[in-house]
Amino acid sequence: MSQIFNFSAGPAVLPREVLEQAAAEMTDWHGSGMSVMEMSHRGAEFGQIIGEAEADLRELLAVPEHYRVLFMQGGALAENAIVPLNLLRGGSADYLVTGSWSRQSAREAARYGTINMVVEPGEAAFTRIPPQAEWRLSRDASYLHLCSNETIDGVQFHWLPARGDAPHQLAPAIPLVVDASSDILSRPIDVSAYGCLYGGAQKNIGPAGLTLVIIREDLLGHAHPLCPSAFDYAVVAKNKSMFNTPPTYAIYIAGLVFKWLKRQGGVAGIAARNQAKAALLYDYIDASGFYQNRVAREDRSWMNVPFFLADPALDKEFLAGAQQRGLLQLKGHRSVGGMRASIYNAMPIEGVRTLVDYMKDFERSHG
Amino acid sequence: MSQIFNFSAGPAVLPREVLEQAAAEMTDWHGSGMSVMEMSHRGAEFGQIIGEAEADLRELLAVPEHYRVLFMQGGALAENAIVPLNLLRGGSADYLVTGSWSRQSAREAARYGTINMVVEPGEAAFTRIPPQAEWRLSRDASYLHLCSNETIDGVQFHWLPARGDAPHQLAPAIPLVVDASSDILSRPIDVSAYGCLYGGAQKNIGPAGLTLVIIREDLLGHAHPLCPSAFDYAVVAKNKSMFNTPPTYAIYIAGLVFKWLKRQGGVAGIAARNQAKAALLYDYIDASGFYQNRVAREDRSWMNVPFFLADPALDKEFLAGAQQRGLLQLKGHRSVGGMRASIYNAMPIEGVRTLVDYMKDFERSHG
Repeated sequence: MSQIFNFSAGPAVLPREVLEQAAAEMTDWHGSGMSVMEMSHRGAEFGQIIGEAEADLRELLAVPEHYRVLFMQGGALAENAIVPLNLLRGGSADYLVTGSWSRQSAREAARYGTINMVVEPGEAAFTRIPPQAEWRLSRDASYLHLCSNETIDGVQFHWLPARGDAPHQLAPAIPLVVDASSDILSRPIDVSAYGCLYGGAQKNIGPAGLTLVIIREDLLGHAHPLCPSAFDYAVVAKNKSMFNTPPTYAIYIAGLVFKWLKRQGGVAGIAARNQAKAALLYDYIDASGFYQNRVAREDRSWMNVPFFLADPALDKEFLAGAQQRGLLQLKGHRSVGGMRASIYNAMPIEGVRTLVDYMKDFERSHG
Repeated sequence: MSQIFNFSAGPAVLPREVLEQAAAEMTDWHGSGMSVMEMSHRGAEFGQIIGEAEADLRELLAVPEHYRVLFMQGGALAENAIVPLNLLRGGSADYLVTGSWSRQSAREAARYGTINMVVEPGEAAFTRIPPQAEWRLSRDASYLHLCSNETIDGVQFHWLPARGDAPHQLAPAIPLVVDASSDILSRPIDVSAYGCLYGGAQKNIGPAGLTLVIIREDLLGHAHPLCPSAFDYAVVAKNKSMFNTPPTYAIYIAGLVFKWLKRQGGVAGIAARNQAKAALLYDYIDASGFYQNRVAREDRSWMNVPFFLADPALDKEFLAGAQQRGLLQLKGHRSVGGMRASIYNAMPIEGVRTLVDYMKDFERSHG
């Protein structure tokens, strides 16, 4: 097929050069005679692969020494249970709901203990981050959970919750636990501000089937007695992500993505590109009377851009025309409708330009 | 590197033509312009991939209609908890320990309820399947668990437990739950004899990170209240393995392996080859006074062949010489010592011949 641009929300586009390297090394990794898929996870070759992946990730995000990096399985949806199983400690937790994914996290967590809603979610669509002044936080929560980027709703945090002793402030000792599935590695973050960061790999990291967890060491070791050993963070950490056989090939691809990201200037370099891509798309949408994005400007996602045509009767034609130009997977999530363009790290700016050009053409012929 | 033979116990050798096809399709699957890794799991393309994988698997094992095929994550070690979380139903279960893996299964299950040991495991190494006449089975167990092939110890079931009302017989209504990680798809089985069969993919199926579960429909829907939703068999089945994002690329590779297996004459065809490969190796070992396999003949594994040199002081030299001939990963598991040759479906008989030739040469020069 000729050039396509894949706007899937995840699994999503990967850097072309990563895929080409993976293809070239598929049957013989570095002269070993083996595919990475065929290697014992305890052998020297895979030891090098996972070691470099962790080192590169630590370098990219400047992960402090007292944080552990865990390569796990099950994605963020499994973590919705694994987080409370590990971190609730028989107490309660605060959950901030800003979209579909954090709502699902809160629902699953409620099966494991008392969950306090930081704001009362309304009936309306999720189109903003509630200002912190509106939050009601517990003083004795085991943790505060939030989702840094809502993949479905296109709502993203561009700030960190302020800490302090006021009722809307996060108490200094309470760990911040963040589902960062769809914006991890898209920009610099201060890892030391978090107790635990986790995410499925299939947006900015690599193939589905790998879950990344970055956790402060002192939070390990308090799992619920019924937490499966394979999902007990302390067990995983003690066994260097090899209590159960890790998803070796997915870790290898993630490692190639990390090296690619370093060549892009790291997370600072990619953040500038991500911001430019998002600006290009939002600026055009805002200038147009034909398309609309409903998220508050200051809370708009750089990763997932939902947008609506003025006349939803044209949605099908829009999607068909996009497909013809090689602009794939633009249909919005069924719970939101309309369109969604996911423009993760690996989406080149040419993809966004081509999309905007098509949107202009479509507006011209249908506006 | 020149020709190698990879005797790893898992992740393990994959069919060469599967890897070559995966390499050729890496950047553009069937003209889609996308890598399989980049596809939405809910798109038509991946729908075709997972649909064919399930259909081919059902054909290979003649899976009856009232069994569900689940593509999960976490491997057999996670299933050690997921099985009791789903199937214990507040009751007790019987566990038969025949090696390291079933022992670990029983230990993890004991965290979730009362576990009865079918035989009292001794202190000695695992070198046989206790005859069923020695078993003590409960009349009211929620299930009987066993491991069909012990990867570390090289002990394999070549028969199914007899059912009946005697104390050593399995009561007709009690489901048989089997960890088949290292022998699934290596020979024909009667799926209808099992309540649940499960296994990590990284021996006979595909890449690590995929877990296969085949379960009788009536066993779904009784999960423990604290079972994570992503690991509740009923939730996974209802969502056709897409409650959480499945390990899409691993499923794609598994699908290619299933098609390869059909080209080998299916499980009957591969079973004949597996038996021939195992016979070649065991016959030589038994004829030699230099090498020894300690497993009872009738319980020897066709998949994993542990063997010992008469003089363990020669182990290092044996391994170094093997490596020089491209015979890789022959070191025995640390708990057993000696050597281990894993000869799964994808190991060609040439690999076993080359190994036996090397063993003969080594015996000649050191015997």
